[in-house]
Amino acid sequence: MLKSSSNSLILRIELDQKVTTFGEVANAVSLVGGDIVAIDVIRSDKQSTTRDITVNLGEQAEELIADRIRMLPGVVLHHISDPTFLVHLGGKIEIQPKIPVKNRDDLSKVYTPGVAKVCMAIHENPDKAFTLTIKRNTVAVISDGTAVLGLGDIGPEAAMPVMEGKAMLFKQLAGVDAVPICLNTKDTEDIIRTIKNIAPAFGGINLEDISSPRCFEIESRLKEELDIPVFHDDQHGTAVVVLAGLINSLRLTKKRIEDIRIVVVGIGAAGVSIIKMLLGAGAKTILAVDRQGILTRDNTYENPLWDWVAQNTNQEDRKGSLSDAMNGADVFIGVSGPNVLKLEEVHRMASDPIIFAMANPTPEIDPESAAPYVRVIATGRSDFPNQINNVLCFPGIFRGALDCRASQINEEMKLAASKAIAFTVTDDELNEQYIIPSIFNEKVVQEIRDQVVQAAIQTGVARRIPPEFKGSKLLERKLTPIS
Amino acid sequence: MLKSSSNSLILRIELDQKVTTFGEVANAVSLVGGDIVAIDVIRSDKQSTTRDITVNLGEQAEELIADRIRMLPGVVLHHISDPTFLVHLGGKIEIQPKIPVKNRDDLSKVYTPGVAKVCMAIHENPDKAFTLTIKRNTVAVISDGTAVLGLGDIGPEAAMPVMEGKAMLFKQLAGVDAVPICLNTKDTEDIIRTIKNIAPAFGGINLEDISSPRCFEIESRLKEELDIPVFHDDQHGTAVVVLAGLINSLRLTKKRIEDIRIVVVGIGAAGVSIIKMLLGAGAKTILAVDRQGILTRDNTYENPLWDWVAQNTNQEDRKGSLSDAMNGADVFIGVSGPNVLKLEEVHRMASDPIIFAMANPTPEIDPESAAPYVRVIATGRSDFPNQINNVLCFPGIFRGALDCRASQINEEMKLAASKAIAFTVTDDELNEQYIIPSIFNEKVVQEIRDQVVQAAIQTGVARRIPPEFKGSKLLERKLTPIS
Repeated sequence: MLKSSSNSLILRIELDQKVTTFGEVANAVSLVGGDIVAIDVIRSDKQSTTRDITVNLGEQAEELIADRIRMLPGVVLHHISDPTFLVHLGGKIEIQPKIPVKNRDDLSKVYTPGVAKVCMAIHENPDKAFTLTIKRNTVAVISDGTAVLGLGDIGPEAAMPVMEGKAMLFKQLAGVDAVPICLNTKDTEDIIRTIKNIAPAFGGINLEDISSPRCFEIESRLKEELDIPVFHDDQHGTAVVVLAGLINSLRLTKKRIEDIRIVVVGIGAAGVSIIKMLLGAGAKTILAVDRQGILTRDNTYENPLWDWVAQNTNQEDRKGSLSDAMNGADVFIGVSGPNVLKLEEVHRMASDPIIFAMANPTPEIDPESAAPYVRVIATGRSDFPNQINNVLCFPGIFRGALDCRASQINEEMKLAASKAIAFTVTDDELNEQYIIPSIFNEKVVQEIRDQVVQAAIQTGVARRIPPEFKGSKLLERKLTPIS
Repeated sequence: MLKSSSNSLILRIELDQKVTTFGEVANAVSLVGGDIVAIDVIRSDKQSTTRDITVNLGEQAEELIADRIRMLPGVVLHHISDPTFLVHLGGKIEIQPKIPVKNRDDLSKVYTPGVAKVCMAIHENPDKAFTLTIKRNTVAVISDGTAVLGLGDIGPEAAMPVMEGKAMLFKQLAGVDAVPICLNTKDTEDIIRTIKNIAPAFGGINLEDISSPRCFEIESRLKEELDIPVFHDDQHGTAVVVLAGLINSLRLTKKRIEDIRIVVVGIGAAGVSIIKMLLGAGAKTILAVDRQGILTRDNTYENPLWDWVAQNTNQEDRKGSLSDAMNGADVFIGVSGPNVLKLEEVHRMASDPIIFAMANPTPEIDPESAAPYVRVIATGRSDFPNQINNVLCFPGIFRGALDCRASQINEEMKLAASKAIAFTVTDDELNEQYIIPSIFNEKVVQEIRDQVVQAAIQTGVARRIPPEFKGSKLLERKLTPIS
């Protein structure tokens, strides 16, 4: 049984020290299973002290702890707050001027009347928007709130904390300015039109948490109709990191991607993108499995993407269930639901089985139970080794795309990002518990950025060549070895 | 003749000091009318120095100065840059996380998995978006680029520097986070739909530089259909500051607004809003004048707003031209075009004439020529006293609206803002050259904010009562005296 991550609370208590000692408070906390991890003294005099105590405890224990502390004589519980809510008060990002506007001279440069000549320079040559406005460094993070985390269709207001969090990570990890925008519409055409209408300010569009199948149409239409990168992170971010993890798993098992048998379960937004990337990276033998079993070429499917997947996988025309698909498989990649993979099926895999069980919060197979029988296991969870986390991808891939003013993020750039992530783990570091670098590894963003810029230049989608890529330097730059 | 504001350039020159002295360079600059205002030494050795010299000079002299300096022996002109363009490189604003995300514990609070419970709290009660997201402090500054400054329809990319400048001022002057958005559509319905779609993230909408008459329909529809303030600054910002200037002009002339005769020329976006505010402030005798002359009740006009204006002004049914309207007028308010007002017409005004000539860049009458014959003259220009500048209004009025979560900015709040601006000029300070405070006067935003919150509470549009306005404190608060 997987435990959910424990909850943290801050309790502000005022303590009459002549009546009750802090030790008795600490004891009361322990009795309901709480663990005091921090204490801040707020006020103190001879008679009483007010302290904020931070406690880790199970979610059910919140009321218990309050009752228990209120029972102590000489103790007033002023309030209980949740640190997660505290960091969200008033939102998590802000807009800052890059230079101060302190006097009329400043004003006349950044606003009227001086700004007029900058406007006219852009009017005469719209490409100058990339040098003279925020477009150079800014992406929009856009959701309609229909598929937020595992929470489903919770609406645009409720989706904002995720988009703000993403904007924080964009800036913190890659220096990218990201504007969170949540849409009050679920209509495909309306979403497409709205995003096209607001695009002029932005150098890229990160689509986020839009439910399937609308997300495919929205992304593909916007890619056609806009000249800036459009990237649905739920599809491609996950796929980029999965492929990185697979590259490193194959470094361990000494197998080539061309030779292995891969089962992908859950043919939704992420599953389709994973299959496309696997094919682009050279995989030959892929079985795509959904509720109806293995997708086959002789079937037609309601969802045109399933048709595409069926036509491009399962060259052997194998039929059957997931259980059938697992016979002799080298790799299982799950982006489906809880506990769909049985241990018995793992036993029927090829030697050195590799399992990516990414259903959230409950993986396709309990990683602790599976671990003894596989070579590598990865999940989407942070409380196990090998977390497949798309935070590894989006900051660096957009950093690269913006730096070379890419008109799109194409398959070559995504593949370059996967390899960059994989090879930040050196041969010395690589092991079964460490196939994926930490998102706080400072090399990751820089390495992705460099490889993505290189791929963009080579595929002709870069509209600016950063100075360090000019002339012969392009050829001199280290290319990530192919897996 | 009004001179346009002088241009400033930065020249980077490398000087062989054995061949030419810096004095000779300075002399060359002077000969083309340039004035050196700053020198920065970039590099220096025994033989040569490289300096950035900042020069003020007329726009025509740019090429002259380059040629003149290149003619000097031993001087290399590396490049010429324009400080206004330099401050625009890469845009003028950025997005910053309010707290750093340094480790997994931070990440689990601001992003997954912790963010999920914040999302669900908003899902269960959407009002919590005002406390737990950026909505609390964020407005969108939205333009379609059709009426940018005096430049006209220059398109969304070219409008961005103005919107970014406005975002800087929002933050610098009032701590408001403002997101600039420029729309790639000019269609009224499309604009309305787009803004409604992106509204969930924002606590207010500042419409900007949208051409007339579409701006009226867009604003009025959005006011009806959104539950956050929608404020077209070109209309109302100007009107608020005009009324503030008029209140103070009347303090000087000791006339009551109810008793005076006001001529408003130019019945566009700003003109209509000015007339509405004048009526709201108690004005009884207004003549509205456009190209066809004085608007009259017995006429019908193509523009329904002109009809509204005709029905609500000119109770005496006066007919004729601007020249006729000026007979006996106490106040002239121009938001029209250059030089429409003749000095001869000023001579036919009532005693202590008040003239607001706000056409930009060339006012309705040359302020220097008119000054000897009027009591007060104000313009839209920064190079004359009494600049009517809507930068005085928008930061404070949105600060107030956000602080009380106003559902709209109504006429009472605008009137409160006008009075707040007016009465930051004390009786001691008030004089014919100083009827309007500086935009850098720190009292202005706070004073507007307080009065706007008070008006919002009194008119029932506040959804939050700031603590300092709770209970009897509301009544205790100083009310700005009525003019």
